[in-house]
Amino acid sequence: MENSEIIYGKNSVMEALIAGNREINKILISKNIHTDVKIAKIKELAIQNGVVFQFVGKEKFQPYAEFNHQGIIAQVSPIKYIELEDFIAQKSEEFRSLVILDGVEDSHNLGAIIRTCVCAGVDGIIIPSRRNVQVNSIVEKTSAGAINHIPIIKVNSLINAVQKLKDNNWWIIATDASANDNYYDVKYNDMNFVIIMGAEHAGVSKSLLKASDFIVKIPMQNDFNSLNVSNALSAIIFETLRQKLALKNNNSNR
Amino acid sequence: MENSEIIYGKNSVMEALIAGNREINKILISKNIHTDVKIAKIKELAIQNGVVFQFVGKEKFQPYAEFNHQGIIAQVSPIKYIELEDFIAQKSEEFRSLVILDGVEDSHNLGAIIRTCVCAGVDGIIIPSRRNVQVNSIVEKTSAGAINHIPIIKVNSLINAVQKLKDNNWWIIATDASANDNYYDVKYNDMNFVIIMGAEHAGVSKSLLKASDFIVKIPMQNDFNSLNVSNALSAIIFETLRQKLALKNNNSNR
Repeated sequence: MENSEIIYGKNSVMEALIAGNREINKILISKNIHTDVKIAKIKELAIQNGVVFQFVGKEKFQPYAEFNHQGIIAQVSPIKYIELEDFIAQKSEEFRSLVILDGVEDSHNLGAIIRTCVCAGVDGIIIPSRRNVQVNSIVEKTSAGAINHIPIIKVNSLINAVQKLKDNNWWIIATDASANDNYYDVKYNDMNFVIIMGAEHAGVSKSLLKASDFIVKIPMQNDFNSLNVSNALSAIIFETLRQKLALKNNNSNR
Repeated sequence: MENSEIIYGKNSVMEALIAGNREINKILISKNIHTDVKIAKIKELAIQNGVVFQFVGKEKFQPYAEFNHQGIIAQVSPIKYIELEDFIAQKSEEFRSLVILDGVEDSHNLGAIIRTCVCAGVDGIIIPSRRNVQVNSIVEKTSAGAINHIPIIKVNSLINAVQKLKDNNWWIIATDASANDNYYDVKYNDMNFVIIMGAEHAGVSKSLLKASDFIVKIPMQNDFNSLNVSNALSAIIFETLRQKLALKNNNSNR
């Protein structure tokens, strides 16, 4: 398989099989690992889907020693990125949400962000094709397979992407430590919205802040302004969900 | 220094100096690193506090090659754990909050949790002395120095700790994926409360669930129930803060 990627770990391999949106060339399982529920499930799914799996000696895992591979790897096609235009054009009966990552550098953070977005029902993640960590094996592993459950949109220019979204009636919400408004002051229910998270150190770039409709902060309770980017996003994105579910609940009680 | 620990990275060393609650034996800075704002600040603080710092060849960092030490390490006294009884006995004019970690195994998660708790103004973190990751160099580094800004309470038995808290009029809130209530259904404003977060896989142990006053979940929007523990905590803890700040804001408007 040309351009194939290695994914590793039980969850990553299992979720790739369940999602079924990526070509899986081969699964290698170490002879030395115990067959637990997940490994059994992986075998079952592989057989159903006609995917080859082989039990191999642990020496086959030598090249991946630096990764926490749990004795299982798979050779898969790279994730398919979605075009922003195609994403925007999709019909939806409900308002949709996006997250833009502006220069997130750490693979573990990107993996955790993908998990949070999938759990909270975010509809897609936009990353720039430069100055940002790309989807690699560590991201796949840290995301615990969540990467297969959410569209990843890669764009050459974030500012162009934001402009395109604005032209299509999306609202842009950037985060910045010096903002006046708190993230929970925004009403997220009646619009398509994008949350922009900045780099771990530099924050959201000036041009994007300028293009935003809202700039919000997380109120810090100590003189210690250093929330991890995935935890900051989690606070914000679950607040948007809280508002959305509260509204649905109110409507169904009428 | 007996029982000393090595902390590494610019933020860890700087925050240890700022907090000033730990004895710092010596700071080693690599001759090969660029003196940026943080290094300059560290030098300034070290001089103010009479802490020895030395510029050394990079070979001194060889034993710490596996860590992202950024060319700076310090030899410090271990963090001082707080006794639960002392914590409970502290006088406070406002209601207080605690987080209990029941079997969190990953050092990076513990570090991220500590940062989140400090940013959100949580008053302390309880960890069990066994079956949980302890505060180590990776935790110190991942916490970006936040570890120096929050009491860490180590207990032999979590269930005894919970009982003691209940006896002192604290309310116990455990998280569990199969709970009926959502985390934002609880009113956090008029009580001292503890949030119990479970192990990455096993969740909160049965005995603690049984001892809890509330059991809450985070509503998941996809058939993918695998939120990272630090991100789950972030969603919950910032909701408690949102409620608290909303109340303060209402009161000041009266």
